[in-house]
Amino acid sequence: MVVATEAKKMKKAAPILAASSVDKRNNALDYIAKALEDNKDKIFAANRKDLDYAKENDIAESVIKRLKYDEAKLKDSISGLIGLKGLDDPIGKVYMKRELDSDLLLTKISVPIGVIGVIFEARPDALIQVASLCIKSGNCAVLKGGKETANTNKVLFEIIKDCVIKAGLPGECLLQVEQHNEIDELLKCDEEVDLLIPRGSNKFVRYIMENTKIPVMGHSSGICHIYVDEMADVNLALKVILDAKKQYAAACNAVETVLINRKIADTFTPALYEMLMSEEVTVNGTKEVEDIVGKEIGIMAEDEFAKEYNDYEISLKIVDGVDEAIEHINYYGSHHTDAIITEDDKVAETFTQMVDSAGVYVNCSTRFADGYRYGFGAEVGISTGKLHARGPVGLDGLVTYKYILKGDGNIVGDYASGKRNFNHKDV
Amino acid sequence: MVVATEAKKMKKAAPILAASSVDKRNNALDYIAKALEDNKDKIFAANRKDLDYAKENDIAESVIKRLKYDEAKLKDSISGLIGLKGLDDPIGKVYMKRELDSDLLLTKISVPIGVIGVIFEARPDALIQVASLCIKSGNCAVLKGGKETANTNKVLFEIIKDCVIKAGLPGECLLQVEQHNEIDELLKCDEEVDLLIPRGSNKFVRYIMENTKIPVMGHSSGICHIYVDEMADVNLALKVILDAKKQYAAACNAVETVLINRKIADTFTPALYEMLMSEEVTVNGTKEVEDIVGKEIGIMAEDEFAKEYNDYEISLKIVDGVDEAIEHINYYGSHHTDAIITEDDKVAETFTQMVDSAGVYVNCSTRFADGYRYGFGAEVGISTGKLHARGPVGLDGLVTYKYILKGDGNIVGDYASGKRNFNHKDV
Repeated sequence: MVVATEAKKMKKAAPILAASSVDKRNNALDYIAKALEDNKDKIFAANRKDLDYAKENDIAESVIKRLKYDEAKLKDSISGLIGLKGLDDPIGKVYMKRELDSDLLLTKISVPIGVIGVIFEARPDALIQVASLCIKSGNCAVLKGGKETANTNKVLFEIIKDCVIKAGLPGECLLQVEQHNEIDELLKCDEEVDLLIPRGSNKFVRYIMENTKIPVMGHSSGICHIYVDEMADVNLALKVILDAKKQYAAACNAVETVLINRKIADTFTPALYEMLMSEEVTVNGTKEVEDIVGKEIGIMAEDEFAKEYNDYEISLKIVDGVDEAIEHINYYGSHHTDAIITEDDKVAETFTQMVDSAGVYVNCSTRFADGYRYGFGAEVGISTGKLHARGPVGLDGLVTYKYILKGDGNIVGDYASGKRNFNHKDV
Repeated sequence: MVVATEAKKMKKAAPILAASSVDKRNNALDYIAKALEDNKDKIFAANRKDLDYAKENDIAESVIKRLKYDEAKLKDSISGLIGLKGLDDPIGKVYMKRELDSDLLLTKISVPIGVIGVIFEARPDALIQVASLCIKSGNCAVLKGGKETANTNKVLFEIIKDCVIKAGLPGECLLQVEQHNEIDELLKCDEEVDLLIPRGSNKFVRYIMENTKIPVMGHSSGICHIYVDEMADVNLALKVILDAKKQYAAACNAVETVLINRKIADTFTPALYEMLMSEEVTVNGTKEVEDIVGKEIGIMAEDEFAKEYNDYEISLKIVDGVDEAIEHINYYGSHHTDAIITEDDKVAETFTQMVDSAGVYVNCSTRFADGYRYGFGAEVGISTGKLHARGPVGLDGLVTYKYILKGDGNIVGDYASGKRNFNHKDV
């Protein structure tokens, strides 16, 4: 397969999908839900092949856990599809309707982005999730999953594509890329592909960003902070930090650095240290932190605070107050999700206004940064970029808009000469 | 001046500007309006220097016309500022407010993008417009105007910056870059600058896009089309085409190609040709067009249809119908603004749904694609990209959003274990 050739066909199919009715797109989701159930033996058999291969090749247990696709995950996929079907159509939303003149009507409506390339980790449920989000939002999708789930993905993709065609949508709107070298072919398709969403390691996301002219929506890292203010509820702070670090340490929304207000440092820091020790979290920090806790910790150089552990390890630093905390976060953070623990509403407001991140939290765990938890139905990724979409990206992040202007022979010359005048009336 | 050093200061000032009250930002606009009037002699004197230099150096009359800043343009600038002051605050708009749980509230609000670099043509009014849009939207701005207006820009920039400081906003939020080589320094500031908006020639915009990691919002060309359907009102079509081509041929929203339905080609094409000839517009087109009009025209190869004339010159082609027109436009166009002339609502709907452009028009001139005409108060540019902002970009295109989550010690562990459940209730 030549990716460029397929991408060109896809670009031609994109307007047809964009103009399709929401009924057709919802029917496709329905058919997929049913076909997954009907074909589960075939899917599980393919998945067993992937699992056998993984075990033979000593692939890490954590990866095997993710690539396993069983009854429970199938049930989640199906309920995800039904949930997505129930969501409003993201296409054709009227953002603005304005008379420029009595016979000249401007409408701003949501439309699909067009052709989206998604490169995702070795999780069969991710393929279903990404494909269904693209179908619902009327976007053509080039899908590349992790090679560890190649057999499962192949079966799933065929099922999904058949359902799309059965629903009356163009078959060209979905393409599966299976070979790793085809990713580089895809990166060259900047005339055909409108957006790339890479998921995976930092290094991989940066590689994509640096090797394509296609706009990329992806987070390159998740360096999340919790600032414990002098007016913090200490027990609440400990509970939230523990959850943010340990509930799922490998996630991008796990906390990496805790900043402690100097006014409470002498009491709070030792308590935090004790808790982290008993939870087997490795503690790093400044010399000041070591002096306060009176135990040896990993002493950090200033520039090491821009580090994402993805593990049971944490950085601690004492700051003068909210202003220094904000400055530290804006400088060392990755603009993902950062939290303050305080009972002082005014300080909380300063923090939420001035921290330049996709998520700014008060008195809760950074781990809430997630499309499901936000109620988006699903997410295609979490954006740490500021343009287009920010934070967890659901259906809303997969649309753009166009302006439709309907007139009766209106010409600019008449308005430039003063013969006619704009009235700019929202209707 | 080292651009990188100044950009770092600006990045630190950005959260302060982001948290500023709309009153302060509006006061700044007020002060600028007054200061322009109070300092007009100084401004006009500086502008005379630019004009003298331009005349001595045989700069084109069209450029001189644009760089001239007189009483009329000053009046426009001042009324622009007053108009902008009257617009709603683009910051702090609540896009979503959702209870994730009874004690966990998610709010999605608009915030400034941060630090924006705008590189614009030699027009003193552009400097005022761009600076004021950035102030109103709470964005720090690096401004680089055309070198032909260096003297005027220097005086204007000083006036604007003084007013910003007088209004209590951080002085670091505005920076003027005067040397051309400083543009290259600016392109390297991808840690500090969030967005670049280059205005100017295609070649220049492409240069910027290819030489920076900073996201770029700009149109790289304006290849606009008008499709004349078999059900077109012929006189309306001629009137609209004339306006779209000649009202201001150098604009990006001027029409470059007219596509004619074959069913009316024998009658419409000669009428169009006659009109264009009498209006001194050079006609190019396919051999079929030449055969129909029976006069020699510039015969075009297929790939020449991706050409922007910016002049009194036009391309004509005969197509089978709306489907071929759509395909031609999506392939050769620049996704800027394209129009259909038809009395058939169903054909018009197919066209507006399937043409993949920022503006899709029915029975009116492509020249309406403009921030003022859309009623945006002003525009910082016209985007032909699909992400973030599309078409004329006003205040709405200069903001992004953040999610603020306020809890009471909420942790993800409680929801993962089923101890607590999300309720996802929009409030």
